[in-house]
Amino acid sequence: MANAPGQRRKLVVSRDLGPDTMSLLYAREDLEIVAWPEDRRCERSWLLEKIAGATGAIVMLSDKIDEEFFERAGPSLKVVSTTSVGFEQVDLHALYRRKVRLGYTPDILTDAVADASVMLALMAGRNAGEGVTLVKEGKWPNFHFAPFFFTGPQLSPTPLSPTRTAGFLGFGRIAQATLTRLTAFGLTHCIYTTNPASPPNTALEASLAARYNTGISSSLRSVRRVELDELARASDVLFVLAPGGESTHHVVNADFLRKMKKHAVLVNTSRGTLVDSDALAQALHEEWIWGAGLDVVEGEPHVGADHPLVQEPRYVQYIGWECITDHLRKLYFRRCVIIPHIGSATFETRLGMVNLAAGNALAGIDDEAMPAELDVAARIASQP
Amino acid sequence: MANAPGQRRKLVVSRDLGPDTMSLLYAREDLEIVAWPEDRRCERSWLLEKIAGATGAIVMLSDKIDEEFFERAGPSLKVVSTTSVGFEQVDLHALYRRKVRLGYTPDILTDAVADASVMLALMAGRNAGEGVTLVKEGKWPNFHFAPFFFTGPQLSPTPLSPTRTAGFLGFGRIAQATLTRLTAFGLTHCIYTTNPASPPNTALEASLAARYNTGISSSLRSVRRVELDELARASDVLFVLAPGGESTHHVVNADFLRKMKKHAVLVNTSRGTLVDSDALAQALHEEWIWGAGLDVVEGEPHVGADHPLVQEPRYVQYIGWECITDHLRKLYFRRCVIIPHIGSATFETRLGMVNLAAGNALAGIDDEAMPAELDVAARIASQP
Repeated sequence: MANAPGQRRKLVVSRDLGPDTMSLLYAREDLEIVAWPEDRRCERSWLLEKIAGATGAIVMLSDKIDEEFFERAGPSLKVVSTTSVGFEQVDLHALYRRKVRLGYTPDILTDAVADASVMLALMAGRNAGEGVTLVKEGKWPNFHFAPFFFTGPQLSPTPLSPTRTAGFLGFGRIAQATLTRLTAFGLTHCIYTTNPASPPNTALEASLAARYNTGISSSLRSVRRVELDELARASDVLFVLAPGGESTHHVVNADFLRKMKKHAVLVNTSRGTLVDSDALAQALHEEWIWGAGLDVVEGEPHVGADHPLVQEPRYVQYIGWECITDHLRKLYFRRCVIIPHIGSATFETRLGMVNLAAGNALAGIDDEAMPAELDVAARIASQP
Repeated sequence: MANAPGQRRKLVVSRDLGPDTMSLLYAREDLEIVAWPEDRRCERSWLLEKIAGATGAIVMLSDKIDEEFFERAGPSLKVVSTTSVGFEQVDLHALYRRKVRLGYTPDILTDAVADASVMLALMAGRNAGEGVTLVKEGKWPNFHFAPFFFTGPQLSPTPLSPTRTAGFLGFGRIAQATLTRLTAFGLTHCIYTTNPASPPNTALEASLAARYNTGISSSLRSVRRVELDELARASDVLFVLAPGGESTHHVVNADFLRKMKKHAVLVNTSRGTLVDSDALAQALHEEWIWGAGLDVVEGEPHVGADHPLVQEPRYVQYIGWECITDHLRKLYFRRCVIIPHIGSATFETRLGMVNLAAGNALAGIDDEAMPAELDVAARIASQP
């Protein structure tokens, strides 16, 4: 669509992208930049109003990009650029029918989320949430060294626990980057499940085994794809790192959690919908597993102080030196560390993400190759 | 000293070591086991009373083992076994003069503390303390995605920050185990300082470089011993992992902290005395550095809610979308994550520690080779 003289094409931005990136957009004098001005989630009514006649849109995971959105936008719309690696908020069929292109931000947040995944595994195992709270509440002066106070299961192996198995529900880039980090902690086995429709990836396993069986990471003895049942039963620490959506909804449910090891730690840094929150709260409360580290919770951000998972752990006073091992394990069994979906929240990664989203939008408007464009046709074809 | 018929030798234990280990001690029918019965630090008066005529003592880091202790014990005392890797509570000269042997628990806690060191580096960089608090206080529902909200410096490299330098103040086993973990996060450079009296260890550096320049950890480009000044100036994340005592007292002071990078993270998992708490609180408050992750604080456990470091960070409401980069950096600049000296607190490691302490005590009483005995003569000779 040619630019009429004196009439600038419109790019709608549903959240301020920061001065560095916004200035790149405002520098484009041929574009009218219409940005949501407030410090909160963009209102849908605003987005639907502004999108009319726009050529491009930079949106967030929280903006529903559906039939109504495209209707309002009209035929001028050439590109939607989401500032996220996921795009479950986008109706791909509606987008494809209108030949609108879709940009997203893959890969760029892999390392930040892998860092956060390891952090949450450590925090949940090591009672870090309780530790921070105890000190903040001024209770450290009452606490003296006792051999088993505040103990949890160790991530790295010990003479008493010479094998440690990391499990991955989903085994894409973030999972593999997490595994890379864990090998340096001495993890000895890796098991994973992927979409049952995917064929076994023996080449990947061979390449991973070769990669990790060298140098400092010779601790890793095997990388193996397994069924969900074995994943639950055999993992010492289990990372949920699969896409959201219907096919993975509540894949971690009561049945799955009941099979897990008593000292296992569950980490979810992908999408809240994969884990049944009520079942997990029960699992923590009834001591089916040791603890959980969550960056995402189903229904977020509507996860208030009364949410069953936020209620865990209930801080229990350490009641005596006789409470060692089993008894102490019981007292301290309920651990849930939750952070507010900040797995990718580093300066460097988020700046990279918003710059990529801006680059995708501008390339789409200019009919150029986008730095990261989803192959929508292939994606639709691969869906069940 | 021979065991008189009908008279059992006495082993004093200043803290319950848990059922697994205590049962090993009680199984020795030739010994009278005298254990402090309460769930708190052993009272000195109790220890001084019970130690009279004892053959051995299993003690904690919090028990002062001084001239008075040895006077009260008398000539029957053959062994002191401390349940700790450090032994700064022991008057080595007084011990040596009386030919009492000293057991301790080196190495066994290396991996647990290295795990905790990486955890604290991630927590301080990623605002994990604030994140946990925000969710616990029920504030998540008010918080929607914003590109730079809750962001911090990334531990792993990014295209925007392709080099990342880990600094180590002290470069013993725990520091090297921490470095091993960090290499899998992609850290590119390692610098360290050690006791100025130690000669340069080029063999160590060559061996580390060879070890890390293979396989997945090829990211590490150099390992170099530097002066304290360069350590402060060049570290992106700095680990304090040196022994306590006079020679390292407040080595991290205001002068040191002022030289550090604005985005640097300081981690202390060794001894609180190495860091000047007031200077660190000022450094955080006045934005000299990004944040700190502390497992130890000088004067612990007398670190209450009014301690200047516990006061950091002060939770500041996110005030608007215009607060990106510099302004936001200012708002969120004060971060101090503190956990109550639980760096070695895993089931496996603590059980290993108490078993080792028991084994040391029994071997000392039996005049046998101790599993981990300090070479006291060599230690005294090496001290300034």
